Amino acid sequence: MHRFVIASIAVFALPLAALADPLPSWKAGAAKDSIIAFVETVTDPQSENYVPMSDRIAVFDNDGTLWAEQPLTFQLAYALDMVRQRAEDDPSILGSEALSAAANGDFAAIREAGSEAILEVLNVSHANVTPTAFMASVHEWLTTTEHPTSGMVYADMTYQPMTELLRYMRDEGFSTYIVSGGSLFFMRAITEEIYNIPPSQIIGSIGNMEYSVVDGEPTLTKQSGALFFDRSAGKPVGIMNHIGQRPIFAAGNTDGDFQMLEWVTAGEGARFGMLIHHTDGEREFAYDRESAVGSLNRGLDEADTRGWLLVDMAKDWRRVWSGAE
Amino acid sequence: MHRFVIASIAVFALPLAALADPLPSWKAGAAKDSIIAFVETVTDPQSENYVPMSDRIAVFDNDGTLWAEQPLTFQLAYALDMVRQRAEDDPSILGSEALSAAANGDFAAIREAGSEAILEVLNVSHANVTPTAFMASVHEWLTTTEHPTSGMVYADMTYQPMTELLRYMRDEGFSTYIVSGGSLFFMRAITEEIYNIPPSQIIGSIGNMEYSVVDGEPTLTKQSGALFFDRSAGKPVGIMNHIGQRPIFAAGNTDGDFQMLEWVTAGEGARFGMLIHHTDGEREFAYDRESAVGSLNRGLDEADTRGWLLVDMAKDWRRVWSGAE
Repeated sequence: MHRFVIASIAVFALPLAALADPLPSWKAGAAKDSIIAFVETVTDPQSENYVPMSDRIAVFDNDGTLWAEQPLTFQLAYALDMVRQRAEDDPSILGSEALSAAANGDFAAIREAGSEAILEVLNVSHANVTPTAFMASVHEWLTTTEHPTSGMVYADMTYQPMTELLRYMRDEGFSTYIVSGGSLFFMRAITEEIYNIPPSQIIGSIGNMEYSVVDGEPTLTKQSGALFFDRSAGKPVGIMNHIGQRPIFAAGNTDGDFQMLEWVTAGEGARFGMLIHHTDGEREFAYDRESAVGSLNRGLDEADTRGWLLVDMAKDWRRVWSGAE
Repeated sequence: MHRFVIASIAVFALPLAALADPLPSWKAGAAKDSIIAFVETVTDPQSENYVPMSDRIAVFDNDGTLWAEQPLTFQLAYALDMVRQRAEDDPSILGSEALSAAANGDFAAIREAGSEAILEVLNVSHANVTPTAFMASVHEWLTTTEHPTSGMVYADMTYQPMTELLRYMRDEGFSTYIVSGGSLFFMRAITEEIYNIPPSQIIGSIGNMEYSVVDGEPTLTKQSGALFFDRSAGKPVGIMNHIGQRPIFAAGNTDGDFQMLEWVTAGEGARFGMLIHHTDGEREFAYDRESAVGSLNRGLDEADTRGWLLVDMAKDWRRVWSGAE
């Protein structure tokens, strides 16, 4: 009899769960309504917009869409910290202006020196290390390092409304993927823990990696340089290579997400494009067109005509951070 | 009451299914026993070898492991056919010795000319096409073209014992991935249909691809050349980039799978490495050390000391083909 009881609880629990607000951190209003209407129409077998579960694929940018990205993306903040820490032990590693600037936390100077300089800074912490050791270092840093202005540890600076959206969509049969310009293993250090997204559903920039047998031990080692940059026109390419089909939902926040939204929302049937507009200088950061990190121009200009939802963080979100309020 | 009935049928169906032979096309014997013993020990919560479902990842080579590869891999046979067909319409495309050899089906000459020649032949059918159109062409070819010696259509030349193994492992909570030197979209044309493996669980060589807006339509177009070759030492790299964790089970059949098996079976806990040995010249093809396609040397030499199962197709398989017997 025991098994019957468990089965019947499972059956009757479903309608009850559906009555609860799936997005409690979103204020009532047009943004929240449009999201729920989309999810309901594609999951309703009676709807002409019905989408079978295998095609319910949703992709989310990470920096500025699921977690914060100011004043620097977390990955670059980590890289600067690692250069500084290692230079304390061995100042001879600072063999270039870019690395000296990194040790001083002077990111403006690095950015001015260009993408080669940024790669040089990344290589100090991202190369000549196994993915496992790298992820352990990143996890430790994200969960113990205080963000310079918020005072929270970085890992707490994920957006509660977006983690609710991820969970809601998964509850409705969606597969949720991250599609980010950030590096695969930087994200995988913590994405399962904070977003419940497994490592196989992380799409990102891909650093070079080599396989060899070291002292009898089969070993993967991250190398300097990158195989693939997952940003702008690279995002549709990265998605198609990894997933093999076009998603029906995409969320981003910068012009680096433009092509992803453009491609996703041009498919047949019901589609949803979402841009997070950083309007909340009080609780988070206010930035868009002029920002050195995460600038949004074309998306702001065209969201309306393309039918993309522009989320106004200040007005649409009851709560911002997943970490302690 | 209706819901209760469905739920209770589902509950009681499980023990019944477990009684049936999960691998009917495998003959009773040591090979079959060792596979089942592995699956049972990693799925038994009371076992010291128990592996939680999220870590039950199994990877399978494709050519020669899940479907045949003689006298040519299916992908190369397709490429030669496409060159021949297009040259019938427009002989001017045969602008090199490699392409002329391709149109004549003379693969030995192409192989002698080296990997540049092979890429040149592949480009005729694999580049300047959308992934969608490419997959439609491949699907049509695989399901209508007769193999030169078996007389079956290519799509029927998958190994029934291996499709049973895929299903059995999935039934026991494994995620099953293909990890092949073949191209992503060549495989995705049909892998869901024949193996029940979704496009997101196909890892392979990655051709270049570009995103652009063509006549107002967001479009991905396959380009000539490759971003990544998923073979030999590239297989552990491809797996780690795509899945983000080390599998616990790997099956292959050539020395191009050696590093994958080496890496997978070197992990902690229960591990399983399997090499398909093509011993069955009567029902399939008999080849190993000297074969131009799918040669197996180091694997044959070391399988025993490394504890990998060497599957003897002639002795271990009751039935070979998934297609009509």
